[in-house]
Amino acid sequence: MRITVLAGGVGGARFLVGLRSAYPNDEITVIGNTADDIWLQGLKVCPDLDTVMYTLGGGIDTDRGWGRRDETYTVLDELGAYGFEPLWFTLGDRDLATHLIRTQLLSAGYPLDEVTAALCKRWDPGVTLLPMTNDRVETHVVVDTDAGPAAMHFQQWWVQHRAALPAHRFTFVGIDAATPASGVLDAIWQSDVIVLPPSNPVVSIGPILAVPGIREAVLDTPAPVVGVSGIVGGRPVKGMADVCLAAIGVAADAASVAAHYGARGDGGILDGWVYESGDPEPTSVRASLATTTLMHDEAAAAELARVTVGLVT
Amino acid sequence: MRITVLAGGVGGARFLVGLRSAYPNDEITVIGNTADDIWLQGLKVCPDLDTVMYTLGGGIDTDRGWGRRDETYTVLDELGAYGFEPLWFTLGDRDLATHLIRTQLLSAGYPLDEVTAALCKRWDPGVTLLPMTNDRVETHVVVDTDAGPAAMHFQQWWVQHRAALPAHRFTFVGIDAATPASGVLDAIWQSDVIVLPPSNPVVSIGPILAVPGIREAVLDTPAPVVGVSGIVGGRPVKGMADVCLAAIGVAADAASVAAHYGARGDGGILDGWVYESGDPEPTSVRASLATTTLMHDEAAAAELARVTVGLVT
Repeated sequence: MRITVLAGGVGGARFLVGLRSAYPNDEITVIGNTADDIWLQGLKVCPDLDTVMYTLGGGIDTDRGWGRRDETYTVLDELGAYGFEPLWFTLGDRDLATHLIRTQLLSAGYPLDEVTAALCKRWDPGVTLLPMTNDRVETHVVVDTDAGPAAMHFQQWWVQHRAALPAHRFTFVGIDAATPASGVLDAIWQSDVIVLPPSNPVVSIGPILAVPGIREAVLDTPAPVVGVSGIVGGRPVKGMADVCLAAIGVAADAASVAAHYGARGDGGILDGWVYESGDPEPTSVRASLATTTLMHDEAAAAELARVTVGLVT
Repeated sequence: MRITVLAGGVGGARFLVGLRSAYPNDEITVIGNTADDIWLQGLKVCPDLDTVMYTLGGGIDTDRGWGRRDETYTVLDELGAYGFEPLWFTLGDRDLATHLIRTQLLSAGYPLDEVTAALCKRWDPGVTLLPMTNDRVETHVVVDTDAGPAAMHFQQWWVQHRAALPAHRFTFVGIDAATPASGVLDAIWQSDVIVLPPSNPVVSIGPILAVPGIREAVLDTPAPVVGVSGIVGGRPVKGMADVCLAAIGVAADAASVAAHYGARGDGGILDGWVYESGDPEPTSVRASLATTTLMHDEAAAAELARVTVGLVT
């Protein structure tokens, strides 16, 4: 079976560990969000791609869910000693090696999909990891500051301000001119099932679907599309998706997120929806399943992946 | 008094510590060699400038004489785990922060002299540190390999091969088109004394003097020029200057190095020469002094600096 997953960072990566465990002999392709990528200290940082790569490759800090295990911050401390901003992004030493290599390969002219494949050779993630696009796309956030409205990079809002500045809207800068990376549309068209894991629907899955051509492919592919709610009991399991949903006027509950994606046949993309037992049932979606969606360990993630894929195949 | 020093790495930096100690109220300008600079992992590395800056700023690994104290190598280990060559250059984590900042400032369009000044703000070296040029100049070495003659970057020859491959000649790639950095010629013209510390005469002082305009200024400046031999008892105190001297046909003894620089009035640049007691006396140089030149500690370096400057002023 061919399984294609549209994934953001932590939630998507944990789901993928379960999916790989549940479907060890199947072909899994991950289309990763690159809109939260950022140039920092002259380096191209791809947080979501790296979270997926490190998690599936066994290099992740499992407690935090992001960044490298046994990480150190010597370089960042030194940048601080020079007073060389920005310092709010926790750039670890181990992580930095990945960015150094990526930046050099990009500078040498390789597209991000080839660079990602080269980095994955070390980590052997057991899936094909594709960036949604090779083009530069960056999520910026329009926020209120003491000096009035301002726009800032998503990472600055998310990491430095912990999403505490009220967000009015998100802009995926560069998205209109972006094209899907090599293999992305094929993976959608030739898949047996497409999965939206419990990633942030606004700033992770949102930009992937906003790359011209991707939403259209997801709408038109013969493969069924199934999503998993990352909102449990009206709050995100991890991260600050509720704040992001509020900014686009979507209520932070599982049924509203399903309605945001929309039901197939109703202008939307979902054939199936998996959500936490006790949360509101989605309307319109053809197949839905209330179950336990918390991924406490790999076995729980595998079971969630199994029932999710099983719901529509 | 205005003192201008043409300096390479370790030997020059140790001499400068003594000079600063001996002349705390005088104006010291250092013209640093940049021909052993190298682009590594996408970063601009300036080993000689950094050795001077770290040494005078108290950040040097005093045992090795180069690199940062309490250095770690997490990033380099990670690059190795990716198999991302080259790995022979010992790029420390602390050191790397300096290169990250330098590279970004250069990429932003600042010339190397301004970048060096910005980095020195943290280290407060007590001297004005100028690169010999803002232009890219790289020392390459023509060597014998099993596959025949080949050229390689000086750092590769020096660090990876420990100067063990027989060197036929050195080429300062880019030197013909290089111009002295801002302040360099003024420092030579307006100085009260010019000092050549015990740096490598071939690959440290050599390229500085080879920047078009610098040798001419040193020849014509009214300031006396005094050098200190880095060759003691026929061997370099530190480094592999003997191998470099052999490649250009100069014997590894103090008098031959003095003759290589040449005496003023005889087509050369030296008004004075300081060398180790017991080593051969230079011919032609107007003033010479046999003394102890080993810089075991700051006091010894200060005394050496005092007699060196005193010899010609």
